[in-house]
Parts: sequence; structure tokens; C-alpha cells
Amino acid sequence: MWKTFSAVRASLSTICRALHSPLGPSSVRVNWVLTAVRAASSSSRRRLLWGSGVCFSGLAVAFTLDKPTSCTWKAEPISGVKALRGAPSEMRLRMEKLCMDLQGQLCAELERFESGDKKFRVDRWTREEGGGGISCVLQDGESFEKAGINISVVHGNLPPAAVAQMRSRGKAMQEGKQLPFYAVGISCVVHPVNPMVPTIHFNYRYFEVSDSSGKILSWFGGGTDLTPYYLNEEDAKHFHSTLKQACDAHDKTYYPKYKKWCDNYFNIPHRKERRGIGGIFFDDLETPTKEDCFKFVSSCASSVIPSYVPLVEKHYRDSFKENHMRWQQLRRGRYTEFNLVYDRGTKFGLHTPAARIESILMSLPLTARWEYMHEPEKGSPEDELLQVLRTPKDWI
Amino acid sequence: MWKTFSAVRASLSTICRALHSPLGPSSVRVNWVLTAVRAASSSSRRRLLWGSGVCFSGLAVAFTLDKPTSCTWKAEPISGVKALRGAPSEMRLRMEKLCMDLQGQLCAELERFESGDKKFRVDRWTREEGGGGISCVLQDGESFEKAGINISVVHGNLPPAAVAQMRSRGKAMQEGKQLPFYAVGISCVVHPVNPMVPTIHFNYRYFEVSDSSGKILSWFGGGTDLTPYYLNEEDAKHFHSTLKQACDAHDKTYYPKYKKWCDNYFNIPHRKERRGIGGIFFDDLETPTKEDCFKFVSSCASSVIPSYVPLVEKHYRDSFKENHMRWQQLRRGRYTEFNLVYDRGTKFGLHTPAARIESILMSLPLTARWEYMHEPEKGSPEDELLQVLRTPKDWI
Repeated sequence: MWKTFSAVRASLSTICRALHSPLGPSSVRVNWVLTAVRAASSSSRRRLLWGSGVCFSGLAVAFTLDKPTSCTWKAEPISGVKALRGAPSEMRLRMEKLCMDLQGQLCAELERFESGDKKFRVDRWTREEGGGGISCVLQDGESFEKAGINISVVHGNLPPAAVAQMRSRGKAMQEGKQLPFYAVGISCVVHPVNPMVPTIHFNYRYFEVSDSSGKILSWFGGGTDLTPYYLNEEDAKHFHSTLKQACDAHDKTYYPKYKKWCDNYFNIPHRKERRGIGGIFFDDLETPTKEDCFKFVSSCASSVIPSYVPLVEKHYRDSFKENHMRWQQLRRGRYTEFNLVYDRGTKFGLHTPAARIESILMSLPLTARWEYMHEPEKGSPEDELLQVLRTPKDWI
Repeated sequence: MWKTFSAVRASLSTICRALHSPLGPSSVRVNWVLTAVRAASSSSRRRLLWGSGVCFSGLAVAFTLDKPTSCTWKAEPISGVKALRGAPSEMRLRMEKLCMDLQGQLCAELERFESGDKKFRVDRWTREEGGGGISCVLQDGESFEKAGINISVVHGNLPPAAVAQMRSRGKAMQEGKQLPFYAVGISCVVHPVNPMVPTIHFNYRYFEVSDSSGKILSWFGGGTDLTPYYLNEEDAKHFHSTLKQACDAHDKTYYPKYKKWCDNYFNIPHRKERRGIGGIFFDDLETPTKEDCFKFVSSCASSVIPSYVPLVEKHYRDSFKENHMRWQQLRRGRYTEFNLVYDRGTKFGLHTPAARIESILMSLPLTARWEYMHEPEKGSPEDELLQVLRTPKDWI
């Protein structure tokens, strides 16, 4: 099968060169088609179908897409290529396109720091109850221990626990009713190898729930936050400033409000520590208009790469020693504690029957450590970080 | 301060030898007194008091205890030496003594597998609301990556969440009232270095709650279970048979009932796997009489060492390779998932204000690993274990 892939890849590259397509996008297009072929090969029942027709229809689409950003997509969108082509008007599709673009762009940005063949593994999955997702994971790389970027586009009826949670946040929803929902979102965690490079997490999502009267409630939520292992004030300022710029373009009250929300949310009460140095976090955003909210979320999504990639660039070749790695591992233990004990998304996912667990838990680090009674030496760089985690700081 | 300790230790050893005490117990006695001195040194306010009077009263007690098992105690019992001396009649104290004995004996048994100076670290702690505990942890050893044995003897008023949980289990308790409680228990997790040696967990506890009418409800709970990384049928049979014998001596229905309860409790629903190969687990035990329950729990406690230590002895020198370690690390990731997401005791502890977090989370492994989409090769030893975790088996 792989020999066939290689042959197909070689022929496509030749075609691309012949068509004078720019090298970057065309090679991505080739990868995208190959991804489809690979995905198909794992499903033995549909092998023949995918091996011929769909592969070539994918190929056809790859050459007819007119928006250059679409060339970075990692797999066929859950709602299909046609639905997302051009400028869709439905918010669900606009949000899915935003997620697809960001996933593709970030994968490409991060792969730049890996040499050789190390690429994101792409899994496109579907969900029996409705919808599916695209999980991209790069594991055990030279620069990234584990980086996962997941898109999900799911619909069905809200589980009662989710209704209860939304009601507790003030949503006017009826209890004990079947409430149809539609959710589109992207979530990502990047755990780098070098302890001088911080971990980033972000997630942006759009939610629609039909009330029993048929009225549709919709809102946006999300945020971006940074978890350094060693504090670098300049990096912290760069990260927060980039997010602040994205916020300020829409509403000057957003950054201070969402910065505080982030500090409060990414909290590990039993450790009396924050998970990291924060960023922004918001939920239930539906004002002033849906259009304004989407524009704001688009700005946030656009700020992910400029907020983080320069920090990777700056530090991924920094020298480090075993004691730095040990501290990084201990902090990854705390990250795991937060994700498994407190994170709303993870908890919700773990308790959802038939959820794709691997996509939910890809946020966990490749390796983590727990030492009994570990306390860094007073005044050490490790202690310096801890002080900031215990008492969040304003960075701008 | 350490020079003083060494001088005291040397003098005490000389006294012990002069008194012709058997070497084992006398050296333990010396360690116990030294532990008291060390604990005292960490409390600056009481340093003078502990440094003189209490140290020597501890010394006096160490030489006047008449039960040989008491010589293995790792620190001064939370209820005091006097209360536990001889044969106390109160169930709270009998249970505390049982916990103290088991803790001391198991520490000594496990230390046999470590060379040199590697010993359990002993922390005696008190709790502002009432009571305290003794945590013994051996970390980064030659044979044990992390082994923690914790005793807690705590009292106060039950938090409302605990009342709700107990009510949901059928306890006749009034909601919204201040209910005084008293709890004594021991809990332990041993994570060995060698992947051929399984992890053991056990916990035994006695609970008293005063109803608002003043009536005292009391019950026992606990269990012992095994988490191997590689399946060894002979070991599994030995482990389960030892527990079955302890059960059968009291009630022939106990083992099958509690074996099933254990399989159901140590379940990771989101993975569709059990944590390990089970053992026994029970809760709310109060019949036929309190005395019978205590005798049963005593048998369970007595079966811990014979169920597990022979397995350590048998395998701790087994050869292993990097792939075995990697699998062990992945299984430790699952262990962490169970403990942080589902374990009732851990969840309860994490949400209890002013709980001693280090004693609760000492059950987490020193190191763990999460790989995206890891699936062992069909028919491999790793897969063989997984089959048993997916479908629990009868071992006897």
C-alpha cells in the first residue's frame, strides 16, 4: 500500500510542478490527498471504494479549491469541502472554516521545528451520534514531546449533565428535555521538549442549543494560556501583549476581564497554585452581536501563532540540564492534575458515552512526574515561577 | 542538629546492646525515638520542649512497651502511646493500633529490598480541625520507585458533600446538620521499579458518625488490589488465594462478593478497562457484629504482606528491557487517570479544605506516560494483560 502512496505522491508532485503551483501549497495539497488515502486504508470494508473513487475526487477538489488558506487543511472538513468553500454564511460553517485554517497553519508552523520526516499524524474520525473531528498529533519529536490540535464538529442531543451545567451558568434551558445542540471547536496543547520553551493551550468554540420552544441559543467561548517551566518576563509580556492587542481591537474591557477569568479558571485549588501564567479565557459570549463575537474570536485565533511561535523560535535551542527537565516533569504532573480533576472540557468528555477519548486526553503530556513533598529551594528559578503561580501578576 | 541525632543514636544503640535486646526491635526503637526528635526539630516553637522532655519520655516508653509489634511503629501514634498500649477496648484505638502495626511491619518488609541507607521517610502531621496522621514514603529507591503508607486518624464535622455521598449509599443521616465524625484508616500504594513486580494498593478504614439524635453509626471499609504490568497467572492466583483465605475464615460469601465489588470499583469507564486484576473491596460493613467486622478487617490487614511480598521477592531481580519500562509507564498513566478521575477517597481528599494533599497524592506514581493512540501488538504480553483488564477473570 505504501508503495502505491509513494507512487501517487511522486506523480502528484510532478503534476503540481508542471502546473507551476507554488511549492508550499501544492506539497500540502499532495499531503492532504495522501492523508485521505491513508485514512481510507485503515478501514478495510471501504478500502476499494476509497482506494479509487474518493481518492480521485479528493484529488479533484484539491486542485479546484480557490482560497489559498484551504490548502493547509489537514483532512476533509467534517461538513465537507463544498460546504466550507468560498465564504459560507452560516455561523457553524464559518467557525469550522476558522478552526480548519488555524489547525493547518499551526501544524505547518510547528513542523518547521522538527527535522526529517516528523510530521503531525492526522486522524479524521466520525461520531455515531452525529459529526466528528480531525485530530492532529505530533509525538516524541525533536522539539515537541507532544503537540495535539483537535477540531470537533459534533451534534446530537445534550446529555442531562451538560444541561445542568449550562443551567447553572444561567442559560435559560428546560430541565429533563431533549435539547438538540451543535458544537464546533478547536483545542490544542503543545508540550515542548526544551524546558525553556513554555507549553501553550488554547481552545475556541461555538455552541448552539435549541430550546424546547425551537428557539436557538448560541454563544462563543475559549481562550489561550501559557504554562512556562521557567519564568521569562519578556516572554510573558510578549504573550500577554499579543492577546491584549487582539482583545483591544474589539473592546477595551475584554483583556482585563478575560485575563482575570483565565487566572481564576486555570487554578489548582488543592495546590494553591495556578496552572501557568494565564492569558485570556471567556465563555457564554453572545453580545453585542453574533457577528461581533465571531470577529473577536477570529482575532483571538489569529493571535495564537504570533503569541507563541516566536517563543519557541527564541528558546528551542536553549541549553538545559537534568534538573531543568526534572522540574519540567513535575510541572507536567500538575498540568495533569488540573486537566483530570478540574478542566470542564476534559471532565465533560470523560463522562460522555462514546466520546473519542484519545482526542480528549491528547492534552496530557507524554511524560509526567510526582515527587512526595517536593519544594524548590527558596530564591531558585523554580521558586521564582512558583511565586507567580501562587499570586498571579499583571504582565502589561 | 544532625550531629546531636547521631550522637543520640550511637548512645541508644550502646544502651540497647547493653540491655541485650534483640537487634531488630531495638534498632527500630532507636529509629522511632529519632523520628520523634526529627519531627520535633521541624517545629521551631516546640523545639526546646521536644528536644528534652518529650524525646526522653519517648525513649522511656520505647523501653517499657510490652507488645513486640509496637516496636515497629514509625512515630508516636496520633492518639498517643499510652492510649494504644496493651489491649485498648475502644474500637477507634484498636483500629489505630492495627494500622500502626501494619504500617511498621510493611515498611520493614519493603526496606529489606533496598540497599544502603534507603529508608522510609516518616512525617507525623496534625490537622487543625482534629487529629492527624503518619505518612511513610520511600521514593526513588533501587526496588521501589515510590511506596507510600499513610495512616490517618481524623475527627471533626463531616463536610456536606460527604454527608450527601453517605446518604446516597443508604446511611440514615440528616441533611444540612453538623454531624461529628471520627475516622481511622491506613492506605498504601507501592509502585516498584521492576515492571515484572506488580503495584499493590490497599486501604482499611473504620468510620463513626454521630447522628443528630446522638446515635453513633459505625462501619468498616477497605480492600486490597493488585495492578501488574505483565500478567503472571501464578502470581494472580497466589494473590487472590491469600485474600480468599482471609475472607473464608469469616464468611464464605465474602470473597466472591468482594472480588466482584473490587472489579466494579477499580474501573476506568472511559478506557473500558479495569485498573488492575482486582482483589477485594467492601464498604459499609457493620454486620453481624462490630467485633466480627473488626476480626475480618484484621485478617485482611494480616493478609497484605503474605499476598504481596512474595511476589516482590520472586521478581524484583527479573531482567527487563526498555519496552517493558515504557509499558509500565503507560499503565502508570492509567493508574493516575483512575486515581484523579474516579477514586472516591482521592476526590474526597482533594475537595476537603485543609486536607494534607501530599498524603493524598502520594498514591500517584513517581513517573507516568501518555501516548496518543497506543495499542499493543495483538498477542503480545502487553495485549495479554489488556484482555484481562477488559474482561475481569476468576483466578481461583
